[in-house]
Amino acid sequence: MNTFGNILRLTTFGESHGPAIGGVIDGFPAGVKIDFDLLQSMMERRRPGQSAVVTSRREPDDVQFLSGIYNGVTTGTPIAFIIANTNTRSEDYGQLADAFRPNHADFTYQAKYGIRDYRGGGRASARETAVRVAAGALAKQLLRQYGIEVCAFTAQIGEVQAGVAEGSCRNEVYCPDPAAAEKMKLAIADARANGDTLGGIVQCTVTGCPAGLGEPMFAKLQAMLAGAMLSINAAKGFDYGDGFAAASMRGSAHIDEFVADENHRITTATNHSGGIQGGISNGAPIQFRVAFKPVATMMRSIDTVNTRGEKVTLQPRGRHDVCVVPRAVVVVEAMAALVILDAVMMDRSHGATRFV
Amino acid sequence: MNTFGNILRLTTFGESHGPAIGGVIDGFPAGVKIDFDLLQSMMERRRPGQSAVVTSRREPDDVQFLSGIYNGVTTGTPIAFIIANTNTRSEDYGQLADAFRPNHADFTYQAKYGIRDYRGGGRASARETAVRVAAGALAKQLLRQYGIEVCAFTAQIGEVQAGVAEGSCRNEVYCPDPAAAEKMKLAIADARANGDTLGGIVQCTVTGCPAGLGEPMFAKLQAMLAGAMLSINAAKGFDYGDGFAAASMRGSAHIDEFVADENHRITTATNHSGGIQGGISNGAPIQFRVAFKPVATMMRSIDTVNTRGEKVTLQPRGRHDVCVVPRAVVVVEAMAALVILDAVMMDRSHGATRFV
Amino acid sequence: MNTFGNILRLTTFGESHGPAIGGVIDGFPAGVKIDFDLLQSMMERRRPGQSAVVTSRREPDDVQFLSGIYNGVTTGTPIAFIIANTNTRSEDYGQLADAFRPNHADFTYQAKYGIRDYRGGGRASARETAVRVAAGALAKQLLRQYGIEVCAFTAQIGEVQAGVAEGSCRNEVYCPDPAAAEKMKLAIADARANGDTLGGIVQCTVTGCPAGLGEPMFAKLQAMLAGAMLSINAAKGFDYGDGFAAASMRGSAHIDEFVADENHRITTATNHSGGIQGGISNGAPIQFRVAFKPVATMMRSIDTVNTRGEKVTLQPRGRHDVCVVPRAVVVVEAMAALVILDAVMMDRSHGATRFV
Amino acid sequence: MNTFGNILRLTTFGESHGPAIGGVIDGFPAGVKIDFDLLQSMMERRRPGQSAVVTSRREPDDVQFLSGIYNGVTTGTPIAFIIANTNTRSEDYGQLADAFRPNHADFTYQAKYGIRDYRGGGRASARETAVRVAAGALAKQLLRQYGIEVCAFTAQIGEVQAGVAEGSCRNEVYCPDPAAAEKMKLAIADARANGDTLGGIVQCTVTGCPAGLGEPMFAKLQAMLAGAMLSINAAKGFDYGDGFAAASMRGSAHIDEFVADENHRITTATNHSGGIQGGISNGAPIQFRVAFKPVATMMRSIDTVNTRGEKVTLQPRGRHDVCVVPRAVVVVEAMAALVILDAVMMDRSHGATRFV
Repeated sequence: MNTFGNILRLTTFGESHGPAIGGVIDGFPAGVKIDFDLLQSMMERRRPGQSAVVTSRREPDDVQFLSGIYNGVTTGTPIAFIIANTNTRSEDYGQLADAFRPNHADFTYQAKYGIRDYRGGGRASARETAVRVAAGALAKQLLRQYGIEVCAFTAQIGEVQAGVAEGSCRNEVYCPDPAAAEKMKLAIADARANGDTLGGIVQCTVTGCPAGLGEPMFAKLQAMLAGAMLSINAAKGFDYGDGFAAASMRGSAHIDEFVADENHRITTATNHSGGIQGGISNGAPIQFRVAFKPVATMMRSIDTVNTRGEKVTLQPRGRHDVCVVPRAVVVVEAMAALVILDAVMMDRSHGATRFV
Repeated sequence: MNTFGNILRLTTFGESHGPAIGGVIDGFPAGVKIDFDLLQSMMERRRPGQSAVVTSRREPDDVQFLSGIYNGVTTGTPIAFIIANTNTRSEDYGQLADAFRPNHADFTYQAKYGIRDYRGGGRASARETAVRVAAGALAKQLLRQYGIEVCAFTAQIGEVQAGVAEGSCRNEVYCPDPAAAEKMKLAIADARANGDTLGGIVQCTVTGCPAGLGEPMFAKLQAMLAGAMLSINAAKGFDYGDGFAAASMRGSAHIDEFVADENHRITTATNHSGGIQGGISNGAPIQFRVAFKPVATMMRSIDTVNTRGEKVTLQPRGRHDVCVVPRAVVVVEAMAALVILDAVMMDRSHGATRFV
Repeated sequence: MNTFGNILRLTTFGESHGPAIGGVIDGFPAGVKIDFDLLQSMMERRRPGQSAVVTSRREPDDVQFLSGIYNGVTTGTPIAFIIANTNTRSEDYGQLADAFRPNHADFTYQAKYGIRDYRGGGRASARETAVRVAAGALAKQLLRQYGIEVCAFTAQIGEVQAGVAEGSCRNEVYCPDPAAAEKMKLAIADARANGDTLGGIVQCTVTGCPAGLGEPMFAKLQAMLAGAMLSINAAKGFDYGDGFAAASMRGSAHIDEFVADENHRITTATNHSGGIQGGISNGAPIQFRVAFKPVATMMRSIDTVNTRGEKVTLQPRGRHDVCVVPRAVVVVEAMAALVILDAVMMDRSHGATRFV
Repeated sequence: MNTFGNILRLTTFGESHGPAIGGVIDGFPAGVKIDFDLLQSMMERRRPGQSAVVTSRREPDDVQFLSGIYNGVTTGTPIAFIIANTNTRSEDYGQLADAFRPNHADFTYQAKYGIRDYRGGGRASARETAVRVAAGALAKQLLRQYGIEVCAFTAQIGEVQAGVAEGSCRNEVYCPDPAAAEKMKLAIADARANGDTLGGIVQCTVTGCPAGLGEPMFAKLQAMLAGAMLSINAAKGFDYGDGFAAASMRGSAHIDEFVADENHRITTATNHSGGIQGGISNGAPIQFRVAFKPVATMMRSIDTVNTRGEKVTLQPRGRHDVCVVPRAVVVVEAMAALVILDAVMMDRSHGATRFV
């Protein structure tokens, strides 16, 4: 179950402190010239050590392609790639061989498999998301060729919310509201000073999507997106359009009236629906949010139990993010790009009347 | 894409006003004596016309099994069943042949397929959820044999929230808080009187789940649940554990400390994680919420456009729910049961050390 | 595992003596006007009682569609259909409740599931192939619109081989060689007179297939065809092109030279490869064979054991085919049509350079 | 479509002359100590340059594991591995950039993808089978722990057939019949001397399989095996039990009578069925054959066409096998092991009565 997608499929592998993590992208169309700059810029946005608000770990995260690309162009065969694990300090994790960190996957992996690679969280490490970003970068560039753009940003960190949803996100927290961005950085600094951590919310918009994407019944576009987002480490919730707020709205306030322009092209006057109706895109921007919990690892000593059920105290070690949200923005974007491209390909396969 | 699940798989079919809707359950274990009473009671909880708070349409929703059950016991072969569409007044829908109802799937199905069965919403009708309930009832009874119980309830209707999460839900809105239940009924009556509709939130708890269920990476338990829930008509959001609230919490407030009892059995002292860590159950109750939008069909005349992009006004017709939440409770339960049973079966297949 | 196909998916269900058998076709393109005549003619070719060479059981095998078709045109939603089991004489099977017929699935179903519906072979009955034929008929008609024709015939019954591979198959054994057809009928009559049964070989050709269909690596066209064919009751072998005969050929005799016509269109001068190279169609006719074993049920008393391992003797009962091959021809055709249409749809989904 | 299997899944990637080929095994049970000796011995059996009868290319084929194994034991997470392409002489292939070799996949890949990595056959190279052998080695060792043994051998090379099916295969052609083995070596030497090539047949037996493995309907054990075998390069046919020979047998000669021993344990007196009935193992040895065509690349100049449809002549280059069969034996074994282990895991997931 390490494979994602229906026609466009990403299989990921790798533990945080093994030789490498990596992925295999299967079903990616042939003849696409890889945009290595876009790839690199997306990898950079996820990279640890990129700024003062994220972990100081430095990992170059170079993506090494092993197959599926010939002279810089995709060949239709599986695109495999690895990212070497170069900056691993396993000694930071020695105390974890026997202890279960709270809010981590140590206990559950042990319960499930009876064995675990405890170093750096092993398979459950958020390092795995680097693979998603690499794959998502390829999906994103192809979507661009189709006129579809996927763009996520930080909507909330701790209790600081962004007041706007558009504008440049070229700041350390990837938030389009400059004033909020400053407050977010302060909130992160404050939490760090207290050995504490923060959560937040990432918001994502997909523009340029034609009406008709998404496969009812169980592969509704929102179902695919929700599954994709909840598969990201630390994600706790997903909603789209008015989302949870819709629960307390009246129908008359939630309605998206259809309107037609002079060419009889039909759109909706508002977008409470978040661009999806009946599981299928309606041509309006697709909008959704993903909630992230505060980082589990805090720079404090933590009381917990070991594998024998005895009390132990863990000392703070390693280099960790105070808040995953700034680095999660591009992960959300990557997963959304994979979902949308998969839907495009699926739609194309069926569409007797449109595509034949 | 009308199939749900990995090992335990439900395929659904059928339009609201065709001869029948139905489903095929593949992979259900052999030798299980069907609990037809549980099935009937779950169908009854979803049934229109069951009380004053739901639509007055009356559909008997008799589940007719076609295969996979011999002398009341499952045989391991696919369990197919149909539910006849008996009480269909297609004349209610004549005006929809050519017009797109706002917030419905009329426009998107037309955009995707170039054709649609407009009667009663066709494939996009919530009637399809009857199939999910029937299948979920079988999953639920088998989970009970494993000591796992799935229980959902109404946590919010409109702006009325339930104050408690436990207790009898034997009231018309399936809410364990009797005082809130009364207010919810009033809210529904009020919305109906105004030709308006309401949304709400369903909450679900799975108890008795052993630690170890769920398949990282992309089939994390929360990802499977989120995908399942967002595939339900009118669902707008999903979160688990502290969910969206976790976004504004500090790590120190969100932590679930591990504790061990005298037998060194490990549990968590709190359950901010909602029973899942790293995508795998940790033995605590699994808790999640699903947000539903207000019903799209209101008893008012609605301005919209037709297939040629011309303005038209739709008159209120048919018999519709003011709020889907009371009837959605059992749908959430059914989908959760399918997800959990699938995870149980998947886990059993892998577990070299535990099960061989 | 009762679902076949990748994008175009058929799920089948039903036991021989339950209320009905049926299927759900998921992913079939929208906007296709159903050719009910083709459907009926294919059902007729599989039907028992159609001629003197097949079983005298009479089953009307009316296909009743439940969904996915509106006004005779597909809507893109799942196409469900059932075929009622009307002519079932369960009393013929009373002696089988407790005994295992040799070369049937009685013993293995019991071993696998611990329970079985013994009536008429239950799920293992070849009656299930009626569902495949119905689904294959829809696939076949759509392929015709793409210029692709699937045509199977009887190449061998018992020791009688057809001398030609082309010509009208409008005889009772569906063999294009009239002289061989007569001998086949005699062979069947002779076997029947002796209470014995026969096997045979079905050959199939797919013409009009463009080069480029098929998905390496594990979904090579021949792998999909082989899996499809070996899933048919009584099939014992599959080969394509020169097939098993290629094992004793020299490379120099097996080679298909490429040639180009005046328009530089490339074809092969011969077709040892059977139209597939590297798992992908090369534009030449796709040719394969399927071997069928002799029918297991003979009109003789049979010594066997019961569920307690005690010796019992079964008396001949029921009405059975002497040789399945005449009726299997259309089943092979149906499964091939499903495979090829799935490959067409899959190819269309990927083909960045050709289809966008 | 580069993924094989249902619960146990192998994804392969890589081209012959790229940096590496490799695979990801998903769903392999945790807690299994890897038998690296078995792995190495199986890799050795597939390795080029191992003896005088195979190609003189030398590739060390070292399997480098990247994930899923910790301290030599599987952890339940995906097992990724790569095999570096070290001994690649791309200059041998320069003339192929523009020409289509007959009976190779050059033309069909070009037709499908509009681009291809022509070096050494690219993705279509039989080098990919090294990945299957590595994965199959892991499956094989786990099956051994369950008492199931998979064993293949050379049954035919060219026109030389093995007279026995049991005995040591420790000779260069992996044939249990020493006299036939000598003749096979002579046949290979003779074909090589003539610049020609040979085909052959591999036979495989799976012993120790309990009754009950295999999933009807479309995942019948023989269907899974057939699909697996026909996905191997150069395979042209598959049959099991009496196979194609059954086509000309009478039912009375093909029957496998059930017998019971003093403990009322039921077996069959003969094994015409090849260990599978109704798609499910019956406890008898599973027996099947795979036909391979003669090697396409001959040490002769070959007339063909180039991408513009112009005639060209290819000169013999590179180092190639005269007959793939000796090296294919272990590939058949590997794929069979993957199929059977997948079936074991699938069976365990369902088996309500046996495994809970």
